[in-house]
Order: sequence, then C-alpha cells, then structure tokens
Amino acid sequence: MIEFAASLDRMFEALADPTRRAMVERLSHGSASVSELAAPLPMSLPAVVQHLQVLEQSGLVRTQKIGRIRTCTIDTAALSEVERWINDRRTGWERRFDRLGALVDAEGEKG
Amino acid sequence: MIEFAASLDRMFEALADPTRRAMVERLSHGSASVSELAAPLPMSLPAVVQHLQVLEQSGLVRTQKIGRIRTCTIDTAALSEVERWINDRRTGWERRFDRLGALVDAEGEKG
Repeated sequence: MIEFAASLDRMFEALADPTRRAMVERLSHGSASVSELAAPLPMSLPAVVQHLQVLEQSGLVRTQKIGRIRTCTIDTAALSEVERWINDRRTGWERRFDRLGALVDAEGEKG
Repeated sequence: MIEFAASLDRMFEALADPTRRAMVERLSHGSASVSELAAPLPMSLPAVVQHLQVLEQSGLVRTQKIGRIRTCTIDTAALSEVERWINDRRTGWERRFDRLGALVDAEGEKG
C-alpha cells in the first residue's frame, strides 16, 4: 500500500513538468527513439535524458535498448492507475451529491 | 494555452504529495472545515494549512470562510481537467493500436 502510494507520488511528480508532459504526449502517438523524442524540444539531449529518467522511474514510460537505439514507450497501465485515482475521487464527490439529491426529493415527497 | 499548461503543472504537483492526496480523498466524501481536515493527519495545523494553500492555488480545492469557520470543497471541474489530460494520452495510444490491428487484418485479407 505504501509502495503503491509512493508510485502515485512519482507519477504525479513526473507529470507536473511541461517538458515531460510533452514527451508523454509525443509517445501517446507511438513509440519513439530518444533522439526522436528530443528533436522538437528546445533543450540539450542530456536534459531530455534526465526528464526521460524521471518518467521511467515513475513507471509511466518504459525504454528498451536494441543495438544502439533506445526506444521509449508509454505504459498505459501506469497512466490508467493515475486516471483511476482521480476518477475515484471525482465520482465519490458526485455520488455524494446524488445521494443528497435523493434525500431532498424524499423529504419533498413527505412534506 | 500557457496558463492552462501552468495550471496542469500546479495540479499534478499538488497531487504528488500523499498528505495532499489524503486531503483530496477526505474532501471527495464531502466538504470539511480546516480542523476536520487536519484531525486525522499526523502534523501541526500550520503544516496542514500550507498543504491546503498548495491545493487551493492549484484550483483543485476551494475554500470559503463563513464567520470563524473556513470550509474546504474539492473542485470537480479541476479534477476532470487532470483526468481528461491523462485519458486523452491513454486513449490516443490505444486508438493507435486499434489502427495497427486494422492494418494487420487488412494485410491478412489481401494475402
């Protein structure tokens, strides 16, 4: 449970940076090599590699080196985990409102 | 557009902390006063208030002071914005796989 929470820490932290979100956005259109990922970004390759490491440590991106090319892929299961955490909180709140609405209706019928 | 991105920065950053996630979790069950929010947390009230400020600045939580009580409420529109960002990336990737699958099927039928 603590490990699960720590992984949420890392995933949210990884997504809190616009460069890293741009990299996830790019990878959502398909796997890419590190140099393909770096090409549109206004920064040095070592800076891109550092951002990539944060994404990899969070579990949101996996990389695989074949020969001299490192290919990066997003992990949709990790994205789903973040999405589910937010969705559960949001729908928890909305269900509460539905229950309150039902109570108000029931009271209205009594009166 | 830049402001929108900056707000995503702040929202993801706000959710990267387990205490702040516990506060959002509590608020997903209904609005709470600052002292109700603080009660289960193993830290001082000023520390809770600091976390609350981060949540408020991100837009995920709104607070309203009536008399001497400050009431905190989650903003489901802000939660939806974060959720949508992740969902769009995840489904972008999944649609890509569907297209690849359709291509493979079409090639299979040709052969």
